[in-house]
Amino acid sequence: MARLSVHGIAFDMYGTVVDVSALAGACREVAPDPVAFVTQWRAKQLEYTFLRSVLGKYQDFWKVSAQALEFTIRRFGLQVSPEHRTRLMDAWLHPTPYPEVPAALSRLKERYPLAILSNGSPRMLQKGLLRAGLSACFRWVISVEAVKIYKPSPRVYRLAPKQMKLGREQILFVSSNSFDVVGARSFGLKVCWINRTGMPLDPLGPTPNLTVKSFDELEAALK
Amino acid sequence: MARLSVHGIAFDMYGTVVDVSALAGACREVAPDPVAFVTQWRAKQLEYTFLRSVLGKYQDFWKVSAQALEFTIRRFGLQVSPEHRTRLMDAWLHPTPYPEVPAALSRLKERYPLAILSNGSPRMLQKGLLRAGLSACFRWVISVEAVKIYKPSPRVYRLAPKQMKLGREQILFVSSNSFDVVGARSFGLKVCWINRTGMPLDPLGPTPNLTVKSFDELEAALK
Repeated sequence: MARLSVHGIAFDMYGTVVDVSALAGACREVAPDPVAFVTQWRAKQLEYTFLRSVLGKYQDFWKVSAQALEFTIRRFGLQVSPEHRTRLMDAWLHPTPYPEVPAALSRLKERYPLAILSNGSPRMLQKGLLRAGLSACFRWVISVEAVKIYKPSPRVYRLAPKQMKLGREQILFVSSNSFDVVGARSFGLKVCWINRTGMPLDPLGPTPNLTVKSFDELEAALK
Repeated sequence: MARLSVHGIAFDMYGTVVDVSALAGACREVAPDPVAFVTQWRAKQLEYTFLRSVLGKYQDFWKVSAQALEFTIRRFGLQVSPEHRTRLMDAWLHPTPYPEVPAALSRLKERYPLAILSNGSPRMLQKGLLRAGLSACFRWVISVEAVKIYKPSPRVYRLAPKQMKLGREQILFVSSNSFDVVGARSFGLKVCWINRTGMPLDPLGPTPNLTVKSFDELEAALK
């Protein structure tokens, strides 16, 4: 990885730094099968970002997440009070980092300037990082809100070199999402794919420069 | 519906005219759970169309379907010979119409000029309609290949009034897909949503002018 000449690292937020499946805890109050519920919610949330980008009808990630929740509640035929809906949405403001992430980020930030580059709205990202105790790790918190289109549009990845004031080939972008791999690589960033569960890569284009199972493996590969 | 002043009808192909879940028959040879296999295959096929549109990296629906098959095979950890892969892909050229569709289309074509407007490649559509015995029903078979982007891009729906030489508000577009509802309605076509299974509508924007459970219900509503 020294050959990749990394001068800064940008991270995806949801599913990469924080564990979306941990939202199942908040869903337990309303859904008999909280894992199925959160899986559907997350899948629809992402689908809506893709569709809004193709349609050219951007709405921010908070609204999209609420619309995906609405669909999921109806899909499962559940009765959910306004108070519970609010509580479910609030779970996005209290995200749970993967276990090894906080310590790994604390060490990495001593070696590289770090950024978040996420679909999340600025408020979701700022509050989420604060509550997760990770705010101090990141010099930049970059939201797609600046370009009003979602990943994997090339316009999103362009934000990283622009904000970080680095060449695109000097930035390592770290994500668990296949669509980030193809989007960021196609744009010209270096990419590390975090594949915690041994999923196959979506065969959509360029492959990652590095594939690891955890942040600890990423850190080791950068030595 | 007379008030909608329909002068022509355009239909989505896959999931609307023909039943994608019928592909499970062809998957039985290779997958222990053919329904789960075809569900994953179809979901990935659609996801890849969305992603390629956002990425600006169009490849035709045949290639996208083969890539989605490749992912699905790996995801389920299956061993599938090249001959079986070919046979699975060939199933897209031998689609199964929903039971009431052929008779309903035969009657509708006496009253309106009919079109297909589909993500499918021209070859997939021509062969599929021929094998399903439906070629004679459609005056136009319109593929996204003409604009090299997938639904729900507005550029796709624009093909219908252009080819059919009708005003956009004179065309009824019929689809089972939520993304077609919002895409076609946003563009200005009239939309009938075929909802066979009582799914909630994705809350993405405009709602359909008409919602029915089958082609027979559509035909009745047009009387």
